Amino acid sequence: MSGTGIIPTSFPENGRKYLNAQDFQNGFDPVAEGHEMIRLITELYPICRSITGDGLRETLRRLQRHIPLELREVPTGTQVFDWTVPKEWNIRDAYVKNAKNERVIDFQKSNLHVVNYSVPVQRRMALAELKEHLFTLPAHPDWIPYRTSYYKESWGFCLPQKQLAGLQDEEYEVCIDSTLENGHLTYGEYFLQGETREEVLISCHACHPSLCNDNLSGIALAISLALRLQSVSRRYSYRFLFIPGTIGAITWLAKNEDKIANIKQGLVLTGVGDAGALHYKKSRKGTADIDRAAAHVLKHSGQSHEILEFSPYGYDERQYCSPGINLSVGRLSRTPHGTFPEYHTSADNLEFVHADKLGEALAVTLEILAVLENNGTFVNLNSKCEPQLGRRGLYRMVGGTADAGISEMAMLWVLNLSDGKNSLLDIAERSGLRFEAIRQAAEALEEHKLLRREWKSVPQAAR
Amino acid sequence: MSGTGIIPTSFPENGRKYLNAQDFQNGFDPVAEGHEMIRLITELYPICRSITGDGLRETLRRLQRHIPLELREVPTGTQVFDWTVPKEWNIRDAYVKNAKNERVIDFQKSNLHVVNYSVPVQRRMALAELKEHLFTLPAHPDWIPYRTSYYKESWGFCLPQKQLAGLQDEEYEVCIDSTLENGHLTYGEYFLQGETREEVLISCHACHPSLCNDNLSGIALAISLALRLQSVSRRYSYRFLFIPGTIGAITWLAKNEDKIANIKQGLVLTGVGDAGALHYKKSRKGTADIDRAAAHVLKHSGQSHEILEFSPYGYDERQYCSPGINLSVGRLSRTPHGTFPEYHTSADNLEFVHADKLGEALAVTLEILAVLENNGTFVNLNSKCEPQLGRRGLYRMVGGTADAGISEMAMLWVLNLSDGKNSLLDIAERSGLRFEAIRQAAEALEEHKLLRREWKSVPQAAR
Amino acid sequence: MSGTGIIPTSFPENGRKYLNAQDFQNGFDPVAEGHEMIRLITELYPICRSITGDGLRETLRRLQRHIPLELREVPTGTQVFDWTVPKEWNIRDAYVKNAKNERVIDFQKSNLHVVNYSVPVQRRMALAELKEHLFTLPAHPDWIPYRTSYYKESWGFCLPQKQLAGLQDEEYEVCIDSTLENGHLTYGEYFLQGETREEVLISCHACHPSLCNDNLSGIALAISLALRLQSVSRRYSYRFLFIPGTIGAITWLAKNEDKIANIKQGLVLTGVGDAGALHYKKSRKGTADIDRAAAHVLKHSGQSHEILEFSPYGYDERQYCSPGINLSVGRLSRTPHGTFPEYHTSADNLEFVHADKLGEALAVTLEILAVLENNGTFVNLNSKCEPQLGRRGLYRMVGGTADAGISEMAMLWVLNLSDGKNSLLDIAERSGLRFEAIRQAAEALEEHKLLRREWKSVPQAAR
Repeated sequence: MSGTGIIPTSFPENGRKYLNAQDFQNGFDPVAEGHEMIRLITELYPICRSITGDGLRETLRRLQRHIPLELREVPTGTQVFDWTVPKEWNIRDAYVKNAKNERVIDFQKSNLHVVNYSVPVQRRMALAELKEHLFTLPAHPDWIPYRTSYYKESWGFCLPQKQLAGLQDEEYEVCIDSTLENGHLTYGEYFLQGETREEVLISCHACHPSLCNDNLSGIALAISLALRLQSVSRRYSYRFLFIPGTIGAITWLAKNEDKIANIKQGLVLTGVGDAGALHYKKSRKGTADIDRAAAHVLKHSGQSHEILEFSPYGYDERQYCSPGINLSVGRLSRTPHGTFPEYHTSADNLEFVHADKLGEALAVTLEILAVLENNGTFVNLNSKCEPQLGRRGLYRMVGGTADAGISEMAMLWVLNLSDGKNSLLDIAERSGLRFEAIRQAAEALEEHKLLRREWKSVPQAAR
Repeated sequence: MSGTGIIPTSFPENGRKYLNAQDFQNGFDPVAEGHEMIRLITELYPICRSITGDGLRETLRRLQRHIPLELREVPTGTQVFDWTVPKEWNIRDAYVKNAKNERVIDFQKSNLHVVNYSVPVQRRMALAELKEHLFTLPAHPDWIPYRTSYYKESWGFCLPQKQLAGLQDEEYEVCIDSTLENGHLTYGEYFLQGETREEVLISCHACHPSLCNDNLSGIALAISLALRLQSVSRRYSYRFLFIPGTIGAITWLAKNEDKIANIKQGLVLTGVGDAGALHYKKSRKGTADIDRAAAHVLKHSGQSHEILEFSPYGYDERQYCSPGINLSVGRLSRTPHGTFPEYHTSADNLEFVHADKLGEALAVTLEILAVLENNGTFVNLNSKCEPQLGRRGLYRMVGGTADAGISEMAMLWVLNLSDGKNSLLDIAERSGLRFEAIRQAAEALEEHKLLRREWKSVPQAAR
Repeated sequence: MSGTGIIPTSFPENGRKYLNAQDFQNGFDPVAEGHEMIRLITELYPICRSITGDGLRETLRRLQRHIPLELREVPTGTQVFDWTVPKEWNIRDAYVKNAKNERVIDFQKSNLHVVNYSVPVQRRMALAELKEHLFTLPAHPDWIPYRTSYYKESWGFCLPQKQLAGLQDEEYEVCIDSTLENGHLTYGEYFLQGETREEVLISCHACHPSLCNDNLSGIALAISLALRLQSVSRRYSYRFLFIPGTIGAITWLAKNEDKIANIKQGLVLTGVGDAGALHYKKSRKGTADIDRAAAHVLKHSGQSHEILEFSPYGYDERQYCSPGINLSVGRLSRTPHGTFPEYHTSADNLEFVHADKLGEALAVTLEILAVLENNGTFVNLNSKCEPQLGRRGLYRMVGGTADAGISEMAMLWVLNLSDGKNSLLDIAERSGLRFEAIRQAAEALEEHKLLRREWKSVPQAAR
């Protein structure tokens, strides 16, 4: 293992293979994994998170029970590129009481009731005045909307339209027991060293309060992924970020400019637990290895899915793919944000996320990473005509598989295209075969001294 | 303003903006513009034009009442590349009289009755002999065909099939009072200086006699365009040519070889008044800015339209796109020539062209030119992560528009892709947004010092 | 004519034109040609061929009656890249006799009854033991399968499933009167010199016993092609190989490495006589001239056809397109091997191949070669604007044809694109016109001194 970014000159030693689909599928039960994620989501659901403050801090501390996450604190007022770290927001209680002193809107029942980042209020007012601070979703009269006001000091309450309709024209007592003061922006970072210093970034936002899919599903998937990656050999190092959206990504990038060059590939994980199809959104480059690996794995997943072109609107890929950063970072989600009615409402709750969907997202993510881990360029040492596979036990009849269960078509493709110009992913794409079949074929051919790994171009990402 | 082709180092000064869709649409009434064009077409319709002679000269002189057109006279016998300027043809009268001395075919009723460029004739002959010089359209028995014989000395009459059928078997007096003598080829040229010497060529043929769509519609559109361009700031200079088809384009190119390098983009305008959909035919290059601008504008026009690949058959784009000239010149038409039955017949008359269609063609042409005028490359001065648009009043909520009515998606796209490699047209194409929205976003961002114009690559055409 | 690979500096002298579609179609009767091929197939059908031995030798000797084929003998044990030339196999007789001394399986009735390369056997055995050596096709109970065991010493019989079902449980006498001894691998080679040393390779396998489509159809097509090519001027030299599959191609390539660089294009011919559509399988490069020529000719053939992407599985294109050889060799077949039930069975017999299909395959192959022979780059000597075709008798009216029957659209396209960068095939592809129309247009324009052949880039394949 080396900390210099130099590629090791030998393939993982005997028996030590990088994360690959064949290995991780042994004893891998996606639904069981999904249930683990559901447990974590359930635990974190009630906490009132925001882009700063104790809710976010508490969330990260709970994640430390699973992985050795390091918490970073960046002071209010720190300049981060064009932005400034805002004041820290904390809230203890909030309510609206009617004339009978009943809490008709109560933060203790749902933290969505308070506009996130509301300044403190303690006043009595008539319904008419109050209404200017109330937000509902008329199209979904039972749901509470999720609203924020990070960069403009204001306050408000969110409530179901039905509840609003029932408010009497009387005087109300309004209380938001919050503070907005100098403090810190907190984020969590976990670096998992691989054989090289070249990194894969895994980023998820952790700033939304009681919302399950748009926040907690990504957090839970990142934790499961980290746990799984800890136990395998890795060519890449992995950096996990649990950050407040937008300002968190900007802060990390501004404070870690020296690390950006090491990040070769990356994924933003969010909204992976709903019942919709997986959607991979390409990086700004559009043809990065992560883009090709994700498209390849989804194509062979047998599940309906969609590949979205990059656009500068979305989650933190906006920052990672800004022109001066321009990382090879894509996004894995299910139904895209803003296109399902539950988005940013109280209906994005524990019933909206599903163990099987979370487990499937983990399996797909692992397979995407397995492609990155094992993608490399080989050279056919017998490039003039085919080698005689039969006398090496690698050929029985084409269309079937060889003694070792290796696909003969995959071997023929690997031999034919391994001229030093094609990576295994290139070969998988051109052949139409699954990367894992191509990888196994290359492994078998390398064992039989028919292929030589072209170290100078591994990892491909280093080019 | 500079005559050296050097690009000015400042954007048009405050309040002076190049032709753009936002501005020209203020108070722009396409149908009213179309009616102006119909008036001009109606005035020019009766004149007997040809590739040389007084009909062409008279037409150009009438255009001088609208724009300061310069008339050029090129003598018969002048060598122009592989061609020679032909003798000048003029005609005063022509008829066929029957035994009762009645004009059964009469040039005074329609100049289409005479084969264009017919040599003088004054003879009596039997119907059988006469018939060898008569041309009809059996499929459209009421229409007079349009026929020419520029490069082979001959004579003839064109008439409706019905009229031919009524001719008695008797002796006829045939008279064509024409001359074919040394003289000149005439064309009109109008140069409208812009901020740079780089030119957009606008070319239309003016050699067809009483044909409205295939001739006069292009002339009228070019005049309206010139009038409109006179009143706005222009980055490009504009050169308008009103020329006889083929020989006129060849003559201009042969006599103006030193000017060809200045022509960066161009349009042949013809057949723009019929009821069919707009058709843009690409230049030989196929990916010139004019090709991309036209495709972009038509795509966003909300009207049915077609983009045609280049082919070496058609109007004067044949010459502008010959391999040794190879200009970025496309063609804007409606129904392509030769694919509608009225083409080159007396049915291409005043009823065949429509004010609304002409006005729409003007609007589309202006918008295409507005793309060329404003296309340029900017550099995001805040390229690491997004700038904070909110504190500059440029961001309310994505999906809506900012205070100034600027599309936030357009701003995000401009910021994301302005890395010095993408022009505004590149950004419009990749984002799927209309160029004008992208231009306005760039303008707003430039005003807020978030973008810098990359002068060295403006105009893009100068590359 | 030159043996140095230098391109002649003059077009074929007056009256001597390279193979072209116009010429070869004169008096060309595809069905009559097909009947010639059927005659040859019928003659060769009974011979028991294998990858070595007298059946193969006898087949090649019979081909010598048609073309001056040279027979090469390569000794057993010769190392050819990763392979070794195997022992020579010969067989005189083979049978299984029942208790009544009746031949229940008889090599004399069909050579498919014996597993090709079976070692000698002379034994008596019970049905149970015999059955381990019997092969049938249960899905097609009347057909004999075709089986081989080249590289593993073993023996066996193939028979219809129905026949197997009728075998009594008794003792059988089993005899295979074969030899497997040191000897030679035989192949046939015919080199037809052209104006340059640059070669087109035509390869077919000749190792299958009584199978008509998968073997003999390719052999017969290659013979007809050779005969036809002998009688025309050729820019390319042609090398015909009649070889045992796989080991024959490997042997030729290993023994002729110095010749490989001369091979600029090539075709593997096989399975061209069945009733299915023509399928062209691209070379590994995918954009070689042979790939483009084949796609062009099939597109204009008016017949249903398919273009297949390269894959490393198939016939000898596997070797020609191995990464260290990487020739521009495609494959012409009809229904692809393995996708029709008759493949590798006794049903691939004389009734399975058709004279009209063979003739059509010959016509298509000739037209593909005619494209290669005549493809070149010309320069328009009059590149500024169009030349005046009318005064040269080359223009009557566009859409029709000129005096010489040359398409005017083809002339305009050739003139427009002959800027030294586009070959005639490029022009044919962009214009959508048939290559032959483009070639004729170029020929006429060259005769009128409007084009100059760019010798330095002819043949294009020499690049």
